[in-house]
Amino acid sequence: MLLNKNFYVGIDLGGTSIKLGIIDQSGNIIAQQESPTPSQRYEETLDLFVEMINKTGIPLREIISIGIGVPGFVDIEKGFIDILVNVGWENANLKEDLEAKINIPVFVNNDANLAAYGEVWQGAAKGAKNVICVTIGTGIGSGIVIDGNIYHGNNGMAGEIGHLPINPISGHLCNCGKIGCLETEASATAIVNYAIEVIKRGKKTIIPENPTTKDIFIAAKNGDEIANEAINNAAYNLGLALAQISHALAPDIIVIGGGVSKAGEQILAPIKDYFQQFSLEKLNKQTKIVLAKLENNAGIMGAAYYAMVKVKQ
Amino acid sequence: MLLNKNFYVGIDLGGTSIKLGIIDQSGNIIAQQESPTPSQRYEETLDLFVEMINKTGIPLREIISIGIGVPGFVDIEKGFIDILVNVGWENANLKEDLEAKINIPVFVNNDANLAAYGEVWQGAAKGAKNVICVTIGTGIGSGIVIDGNIYHGNNGMAGEIGHLPINPISGHLCNCGKIGCLETEASATAIVNYAIEVIKRGKKTIIPENPTTKDIFIAAKNGDEIANEAINNAAYNLGLALAQISHALAPDIIVIGGGVSKAGEQILAPIKDYFQQFSLEKLNKQTKIVLAKLENNAGIMGAAYYAMVKVKQ
Repeated sequence: MLLNKNFYVGIDLGGTSIKLGIIDQSGNIIAQQESPTPSQRYEETLDLFVEMINKTGIPLREIISIGIGVPGFVDIEKGFIDILVNVGWENANLKEDLEAKINIPVFVNNDANLAAYGEVWQGAAKGAKNVICVTIGTGIGSGIVIDGNIYHGNNGMAGEIGHLPINPISGHLCNCGKIGCLETEASATAIVNYAIEVIKRGKKTIIPENPTTKDIFIAAKNGDEIANEAINNAAYNLGLALAQISHALAPDIIVIGGGVSKAGEQILAPIKDYFQQFSLEKLNKQTKIVLAKLENNAGIMGAAYYAMVKVKQ
Repeated sequence: MLLNKNFYVGIDLGGTSIKLGIIDQSGNIIAQQESPTPSQRYEETLDLFVEMINKTGIPLREIISIGIGVPGFVDIEKGFIDILVNVGWENANLKEDLEAKINIPVFVNNDANLAAYGEVWQGAAKGAKNVICVTIGTGIGSGIVIDGNIYHGNNGMAGEIGHLPINPISGHLCNCGKIGCLETEASATAIVNYAIEVIKRGKKTIIPENPTTKDIFIAAKNGDEIANEAINNAAYNLGLALAQISHALAPDIIVIGGGVSKAGEQILAPIKDYFQQFSLEKLNKQTKIVLAKLENNAGIMGAAYYAMVKVKQ
């Protein structure tokens, strides 16, 4: 009897939650699971992966391979992880350990890379060859796809644009110890901090105390000057940084994702304006800048696609 | 009788001169020719290519393929060139026309790309996978090699880092119409202009009137403050721009070539210092920044290698 294996598993391991999808080769999500991430309990987390698959009702024998995106650096050949600060793992032999448990091929990569891969497979950059996929949330990260493949760079350091020096003279101090990294000037955190700083100087505003990024986008829509300044400042730094990168990489398309991208045109339009201002005309005309499409599913989609591509190699 | 074809021709077409080399598959230059570029005379230039090959004494039947680097954008599939401002060509069907004349496969690419390819094949980046090769002369250009292959980007626009917006607020006006492009802030021209500007303000200096870049490097060696400032300013902008690009690309190695690189450590050392200042520690530690090795031969070497790789595809 011939068993037809039909599905790939995509797992998106985050600091607070694990997302898991059973996905077919056409990119349809057959089933989904979500669960809080057990902190600092590696073995338990592997068991949870298996449990989450079982909960979908899809039998293990139907699964061809498993892809996992993790928030940190991965030795992608070995599927080995030195350290995952947000999850509390150290020296984790993830590929080997999960394969031993489940007897299905496992492939591990960085979560930003796999989110980019997901957008290229089924999302906003579908079919594009050269893509930068920027995630703007608490921090800023990116995944780069070149010629349809995830580009890792030397030691997997490609796409670390959160630390691109955008304002190294008069910017803010970053966790990394440098001044004016892109994520200190343009992340969700940066937008909130910018507003708080200006409010402290006594300017009038409708932004509430201890604001979220969402509060600031709402205030901006209602004409609040400080809120608009805070958003404009982030967009300026993003547009400039993306122009700088694009004069080297000349991507087909830049995808803007992450929490801040939920503001839609309110953040996209000024990023595009600044990108245009700072780019050669030819480059600006040919570079599409768009919002991410898969949102919370980019990670599982990219992980499943990675599992599909790698198992065929 | 079996004819053994042994050689590749590499041609470096510049605005002022044509360099041509007969090169074997191990990268040995068997013979070389140089000739002034006939301006705006396309047909004559093609005949000159053939004449230059003949002058080397190597019979055409020994030549497997020909690579040509040109100073502008190329449709690399067709070997077609819209316009070469420096050479005075328009709508040139270079591949087709030269192949018709000589009956040997011809492959055309951009000169900066091929110089980078040369350095990866036989020069300062020998054997490296991911490389940025920057040429600092009158302007600034670069060639990018990813996974051992020339990276072209969308419409061949990759590597246009001369127009990377490095100082878009308080920089100089560029020919492209924008403010503070890297080449207005860090090219040979920029170094000279910086010195002239400061001298005009009446500062004491040993830099001669109407200085060349070389004059400025000599004055700097002799302790001249303005000269050192001019060089430091260029190195600052180069170090910062390379750090910005590298947070996206994470290359193994950055090669610094072009006229300004002849100053050796005098320009390399401060570029490295600023790169370090503006980079994540891990990125800085793993990214080598070195001087180009092939100098004037990078173009012919890369063109010959390109001819070799393409003819095998």
